[in-house]
Amino acid sequence: MAVQRIQIQSVRPQVDCGRFPAKASVGDTVEIAATIFRDGHEKLQAVVRYRPTGKRRWREVALEATGNDLYRAQITPDALGPWELRIQAWVDPYASWLDEHDRKVAAGQADLSSELSEGRLLFDDGTVEEWHAAAPALSDRARKDAVKSDLLRIDVDRGRARFGAWYELFPRSWGGFSGVAAVLPEIAALGFDVVYLPPVHPIGETFRKGRNNAERARKGDPGSPWAIGGPAGGHDALDPDLGTDDDFDAMVAAAKAAGVEIALDFAIQCSPDHPWLVEHPVWFNRRPDGTIKYAENPPKRYQDIHNVDWDSEQRDELWRALRDVVLGWCRRGILAFRVDNPHTKPVPFWEWLIAEVRAEFPEAIFLAEAFTRPAPMTTLAKVGFSQSYTYFTWKNTKAEIVEFVEQVRSWAPTYRPNMWPNTPDILHEYLQDGGRPAFEARLVLATTLSPSYGIYSGYEACENTPVRKGSEEYLDSEKYEVKKRSLKGPLLPLIRRLNEIRRAHPALQRFESLTWLDTHNGELIAYAKSEGDDVVITVVNLDPTGPQEGLCILPPSLGLPDSFTAVDLLADSAYRWRTGRNFVGLPAGGAHVIAVEPQPLEGTA
Amino acid sequence: MAVQRIQIQSVRPQVDCGRFPAKASVGDTVEIAATIFRDGHEKLQAVVRYRPTGKRRWREVALEATGNDLYRAQITPDALGPWELRIQAWVDPYASWLDEHDRKVAAGQADLSSELSEGRLLFDDGTVEEWHAAAPALSDRARKDAVKSDLLRIDVDRGRARFGAWYELFPRSWGGFSGVAAVLPEIAALGFDVVYLPPVHPIGETFRKGRNNAERARKGDPGSPWAIGGPAGGHDALDPDLGTDDDFDAMVAAAKAAGVEIALDFAIQCSPDHPWLVEHPVWFNRRPDGTIKYAENPPKRYQDIHNVDWDSEQRDELWRALRDVVLGWCRRGILAFRVDNPHTKPVPFWEWLIAEVRAEFPEAIFLAEAFTRPAPMTTLAKVGFSQSYTYFTWKNTKAEIVEFVEQVRSWAPTYRPNMWPNTPDILHEYLQDGGRPAFEARLVLATTLSPSYGIYSGYEACENTPVRKGSEEYLDSEKYEVKKRSLKGPLLPLIRRLNEIRRAHPALQRFESLTWLDTHNGELIAYAKSEGDDVVITVVNLDPTGPQEGLCILPPSLGLPDSFTAVDLLADSAYRWRTGRNFVGLPAGGAHVIAVEPQPLEGTA
Repeated sequence: MAVQRIQIQSVRPQVDCGRFPAKASVGDTVEIAATIFRDGHEKLQAVVRYRPTGKRRWREVALEATGNDLYRAQITPDALGPWELRIQAWVDPYASWLDEHDRKVAAGQADLSSELSEGRLLFDDGTVEEWHAAAPALSDRARKDAVKSDLLRIDVDRGRARFGAWYELFPRSWGGFSGVAAVLPEIAALGFDVVYLPPVHPIGETFRKGRNNAERARKGDPGSPWAIGGPAGGHDALDPDLGTDDDFDAMVAAAKAAGVEIALDFAIQCSPDHPWLVEHPVWFNRRPDGTIKYAENPPKRYQDIHNVDWDSEQRDELWRALRDVVLGWCRRGILAFRVDNPHTKPVPFWEWLIAEVRAEFPEAIFLAEAFTRPAPMTTLAKVGFSQSYTYFTWKNTKAEIVEFVEQVRSWAPTYRPNMWPNTPDILHEYLQDGGRPAFEARLVLATTLSPSYGIYSGYEACENTPVRKGSEEYLDSEKYEVKKRSLKGPLLPLIRRLNEIRRAHPALQRFESLTWLDTHNGELIAYAKSEGDDVVITVVNLDPTGPQEGLCILPPSLGLPDSFTAVDLLADSAYRWRTGRNFVGLPAGGAHVIAVEPQPLEGTA
Repeated sequence: MAVQRIQIQSVRPQVDCGRFPAKASVGDTVEIAATIFRDGHEKLQAVVRYRPTGKRRWREVALEATGNDLYRAQITPDALGPWELRIQAWVDPYASWLDEHDRKVAAGQADLSSELSEGRLLFDDGTVEEWHAAAPALSDRARKDAVKSDLLRIDVDRGRARFGAWYELFPRSWGGFSGVAAVLPEIAALGFDVVYLPPVHPIGETFRKGRNNAERARKGDPGSPWAIGGPAGGHDALDPDLGTDDDFDAMVAAAKAAGVEIALDFAIQCSPDHPWLVEHPVWFNRRPDGTIKYAENPPKRYQDIHNVDWDSEQRDELWRALRDVVLGWCRRGILAFRVDNPHTKPVPFWEWLIAEVRAEFPEAIFLAEAFTRPAPMTTLAKVGFSQSYTYFTWKNTKAEIVEFVEQVRSWAPTYRPNMWPNTPDILHEYLQDGGRPAFEARLVLATTLSPSYGIYSGYEACENTPVRKGSEEYLDSEKYEVKKRSLKGPLLPLIRRLNEIRRAHPALQRFESLTWLDTHNGELIAYAKSEGDDVVITVVNLDPTGPQEGLCILPPSLGLPDSFTAVDLLADSAYRWRTGRNFVGLPAGGAHVIAVEPQPLEGTA
């Protein structure tokens, strides 16, 4: 006969019944909510207690009743790493007595002597006025009988896990580590926060892929950086063609000096020449006839790489070795990792690895390159990935974009998108056919829809030649050959401006708040994002072939002024806009990115 | 380093993370669903295992993959009481090997000797064809490593818990138990399933309420039946004015013979004359000055009843005594209880009491008279109440009705509505002002929206005089005086016909499936309900003052024929309707209840 009369339900944030932590970035305001009620008319008090996991002292905020048994509070975790919280609620007999007493007085009930005898038992001597003054402090006396919710967790990471502009480049095309170091200030000046490098490790010779993914390399072909491991070492070594250890460290230092950070690739696969194949043969899957299986997903075959055997009898050693690879790079100043195909590795491995790494380096960020089904993508976010690639690259029509963004919104509060208009693996037909207007439209979409976005180098130059019609692979892909790269292209001014706008506008630094706006034109997509007082309205012409006209209808629910100055942040011009219908005309692939200035513009009609 | 590589997520039905059971009625098909995936390309097998709680033997159904990692199955619990289920999933190495082999053959890969050596290890000797044949049976060998979900529960009750027509009457106005027994066949012939009686126990004398809720009764006033307890006994006794124990038993037998059942009221409150006040003084709340508190919620005062003290030091005895009251009536053939104000009693008490009663009488049904906030209403459903009163009585405009029904739909799968257009406590202004058309409209709404509905006697006669303007109380309410009642009134034919229609149409026996239909008229509400092949379309004119015209637009998503015979079940006429726009004209408060006949009507235009 358990008798927990106070019910605490639906505590938020909560992920999968508390199995996984919610996510927040340091300094974020986290909304706490719970449904709390009890039979009868007693007054309840409730608090949320929270602390960094492992600390002894709880912090505490009172929950406020906001109607229909819903209670709310806000907390602001101020340290990196795991936090825990729980709700406590209790009956406040002092407030309850006063409430009932006051209601009887208000109703004109004359004889309250019985009630007052009860009050004296509760408050000791004094007047009702004195009891009113004393009640708030007394409430804590009743707290020993507080009902407690289960413990819930919040994983706190740094702001960069949520908001940042990424630039991907193959160092071998930029003169190796020292060449990259030299160009970093220029990349930083464009407003990028993270420079992501594909694997920088020695590349296997055996079954090395040739140009355009040819099954045989020709002499001098450099191979795919994802075929990791050669005579010079494996995942903890550097490709000698890119530079020395000192060159690498100098590049990391240059990044720090320039105000960007380097992200490395973590790809768990080994070329046939990886030292682990000899040192740890039991980590790889062998057939009864002694052959090691190369990676394959029939009809696809990846003869230049072997996957590890996750069922290996030396599984624990394998896991630790992989963790130590990541820790090793952390110790060399790398705190952001783009993880290759994490969905093809066991979910529990990632939950373990990320926790282990973040226990030592709580700043570490993990970007999941998981282009797969919703369940594994969202699960990887739940087990610790800070952010993930998305289906963005393949969503190009208005209907596709809206459906896609709504799906990603339904995956909050653990899944954070990082939207890339291109990657070395994906050159979408829209970009192939649409040329520069298409590149501009997709860039504005990525930068304004998603707090994290990235481009793969060449985007600024509108590179868009596929290896063949119908393929999403680039012709002469940098994955298999060395290019001569430098930072140039017609899109650089737009990139710089968009990165500036993103840094200046908190509305673009969060994914949650988005309102779709009617345009009366299927080629014009429009949305408003807001954070506090900051409101940014984006309108993009998805048609790369010609101009489009339509409306941008601002519903009253946005709470904007009837009339206001719409500052076009891309055009450095301003219009008078209003809640309601606004005319919009945009050239092929063009966009407005509009800040709302509350004061109406002087002297305009 | 736990390594559960198969993820089993979002198993349904699941209520509050498995804290509460889902609900089903015996013979219902229960949809089981789960998200199941694992890294890699291995083939998975999954089953749902289920059994009545306490039985040893599991039953089992294979789950079918329906895309995007979603797996589904259907089970049909065939016994009353609690059931439990869990999902098991495992890698099928046999199917996995065959799948990979077959894909390589399809891709034209020539040398499969390595693969075949692996196959022989798995299957022993034989050909790939033989292995294909053997694989399904072999799958079970791998099952020892199956991953199991947590146990989930389903509470299985009888169909009446979900679907039934209730009629409420005060036995004292019908000649007591023997008078009720005499009228039961007539009530049954109207198509009612349950006859609900307000409390039938002795009524207190002290502070007895007079007519129209007067604070003092006059000589001869019978008092409110909810002031339970007098010299003749308490909750386990019968009001001598209603008849003897034998009369009661004869009434219950007459109900059985007529094919209806009697529901009693369970109201946990005691008149000042209840024997428990003397026998168990510690069960009641006393002030320091020795006075017992009567029930009150300032400014309201209920001097004729005392609530029990749920914090009593003899709490366990109190709980058992209350349980024994219910069990006592069950043993006398009562298996349906309308529970008065359950939200003012502790939630854990109900969870315990209902489980205790249903352990002995799994057929028992509990209807919660909880007119309160969403959290307690839904929680009472979760802890065991079979069904609940709703806000229906106060939802009279089209917008109110749609919003209300959508809210109730969001409370599935535990909360089941029982919609009453009137109760002895609630005579809505819409009925007061609208007269017979309003009564007709509300009756059609209740009977077609909700599988369970009820009316309080007098409804059939369109009784609608309030005690005063602005009050929802009846004038000369039966709660405080004896009326002379018999079954008559202009609405009886409509009631009989609606009950017939409900029994003939499975679409009206479930709440889940409902599609709102556009009418282009704010006074016309329309909806389609379906169950299997059965489709019923209802259109109601909510305007009790005059006729209304509009449309009934059937969207293609309903899957109805382009053209079909719309049989108006209330008018016994038929029209030719179509997917798309159909003209509708209805008199004040009028309604169509339409069955879809797939064959188009011959000879109509």
